[in-house]
Amino acid sequence: MRFEVTILGSSSATPIYNRNPSSQALNINDRLYLIDCGEGTQQQMLRFGVKASRIDNIFISHLHGDHYLGLVGLLSSLHLNGRKKTLNLFGPASLKEIIEIQLKYSETDLQYNINYVFTDPEKPVVIFENQDITVETIPLEHRIPTTGFLFKQKKRNRKLIKEKIDELNIPIEYFTAIKKGNDYTTNDGTVYKNDVLTTAPEAPKSYAYCSDTIYTEQYFKQISNVDLLYHESTFLNDMLDRAQTTFHTTALQAGQVALQTGAKKLALGHFSARYKTLDDILAEAQSVFPDSELAIEGKTFVIE
Amino acid sequence: MRFEVTILGSSSATPIYNRNPSSQALNINDRLYLIDCGEGTQQQMLRFGVKASRIDNIFISHLHGDHYLGLVGLLSSLHLNGRKKTLNLFGPASLKEIIEIQLKYSETDLQYNINYVFTDPEKPVVIFENQDITVETIPLEHRIPTTGFLFKQKKRNRKLIKEKIDELNIPIEYFTAIKKGNDYTTNDGTVYKNDVLTTAPEAPKSYAYCSDTIYTEQYFKQISNVDLLYHESTFLNDMLDRAQTTFHTTALQAGQVALQTGAKKLALGHFSARYKTLDDILAEAQSVFPDSELAIEGKTFVIE
Repeated sequence: MRFEVTILGSSSATPIYNRNPSSQALNINDRLYLIDCGEGTQQQMLRFGVKASRIDNIFISHLHGDHYLGLVGLLSSLHLNGRKKTLNLFGPASLKEIIEIQLKYSETDLQYNINYVFTDPEKPVVIFENQDITVETIPLEHRIPTTGFLFKQKKRNRKLIKEKIDELNIPIEYFTAIKKGNDYTTNDGTVYKNDVLTTAPEAPKSYAYCSDTIYTEQYFKQISNVDLLYHESTFLNDMLDRAQTTFHTTALQAGQVALQTGAKKLALGHFSARYKTLDDILAEAQSVFPDSELAIEGKTFVIE
Repeated sequence: MRFEVTILGSSSATPIYNRNPSSQALNINDRLYLIDCGEGTQQQMLRFGVKASRIDNIFISHLHGDHYLGLVGLLSSLHLNGRKKTLNLFGPASLKEIIEIQLKYSETDLQYNINYVFTDPEKPVVIFENQDITVETIPLEHRIPTTGFLFKQKKRNRKLIKEKIDELNIPIEYFTAIKKGNDYTTNDGTVYKNDVLTTAPEAPKSYAYCSDTIYTEQYFKQISNVDLLYHESTFLNDMLDRAQTTFHTTALQAGQVALQTGAKKLALGHFSARYKTLDDILAEAQSVFPDSELAIEGKTFVIE
């Protein structure tokens, strides 16, 4: 099953040419999910071939402009391009007021319904579920109410060993039970244990999006052992004081989060505009957690 | 005196890669004025070397997102970058509510003051004046309340003919009166007519920004004989019906506006995303008004 994240924006609040504010497109089993929607996200989607019309679920972490100011434009474009299908929008409750006031004054009567699901920054909640995944909020600690998002693939069925199934001539109506782990008993009473008939499924994949937050261990347990951890790394560690004052994380700390939570890979983002190049950010994180990468515009992280 | 317009965005509401929504930076006598502020305007300013910190006056034509969705991000960046100086913001009254709700939920307490000046879409009003220019609103006819803006350089003083002034040994305290057109009388009663002492000043320059509007003659008299007319030309004339339904103008009509109002030059913009190339738009306007040009991203119109 495809499970990949394309980075649409890597910058923090003040603008820098060629870096865009936060937004990411997840493709999980060919369904698209959008996380955050900074200004210019529509242009970035056009640039990197992410089809806006295919997005049914948008997740907004918090109401600092660099995480949502592209949203009203996107909602309007979906309307102008004829969308009729309901869109699920997950985020802080005040987002609804912000959107509705702007639609009101532009006299835009959306042709589709927005299903708002409000996030609670105080505790993890499963806010979305479909056949492929669950999504739960990650309570973060920032200047204003903020949540990250944990995307977890559901546990999948075991895989039939086709040759064995054929050899034993097992009728198709037994397949579902066998895939779920049951043994198979023939008419003459012979029992074939499940592990003779099936192989283990792929391990469920997982992705944690953690932006914006001060360094805190409060969500370590929740995100333990994810395949990919995106963590903000706004500053280098020589600006630790500034990171703490502004409730952000340094690259060194992001590496520590990945190390301590047992992440398989770390994606770094939300860079301060003061860093014209990002080599030092990457090196600092890698000094703690070698499998770190920069989550820059256009990069796709594929979880195998 | 420098009087030039740099185009930051040329597209209408639905996005197209490599065209940005409406925004223009005016440089008049080295003061910067921003007209409209579509999403991504900050990136465009960085791209084309327009210094955001030098802008003291922002003019918003109306509350469709493609004309103002970059504004809250810009206001926030000015704050983050330490602005203390008051910013004048001209636009529909509801803009204040839209901005304030977003600052409230992001818990942003701006370090500078915004002086709101609300526009009236029903009649032309001089909304700004300084030593260089006046700015008046142009009532347009669109789906929601909309004004254009007419920038007019003030009438300047006549220029002293230095050689003549020196020859007659005219004392400096008479210069202001002579520049204003007075004659000069010597102590022995000889009168020197003003046109012997001075030459005419440069003609005052003018720029009219007309977006968005249906074709209407209601503002023709107000914008007559401008040096540069920016007029929206969202569609080709084969989509005249669509233009009328959506209260927009075709390229042919934009040419007619320029012709009938005696504009010296026409700048075309606000192009529908359906036009991947703009040659036909330009040709159509030029068929009526030869001195038409495309107002595309990065182009600067210099009024000599």
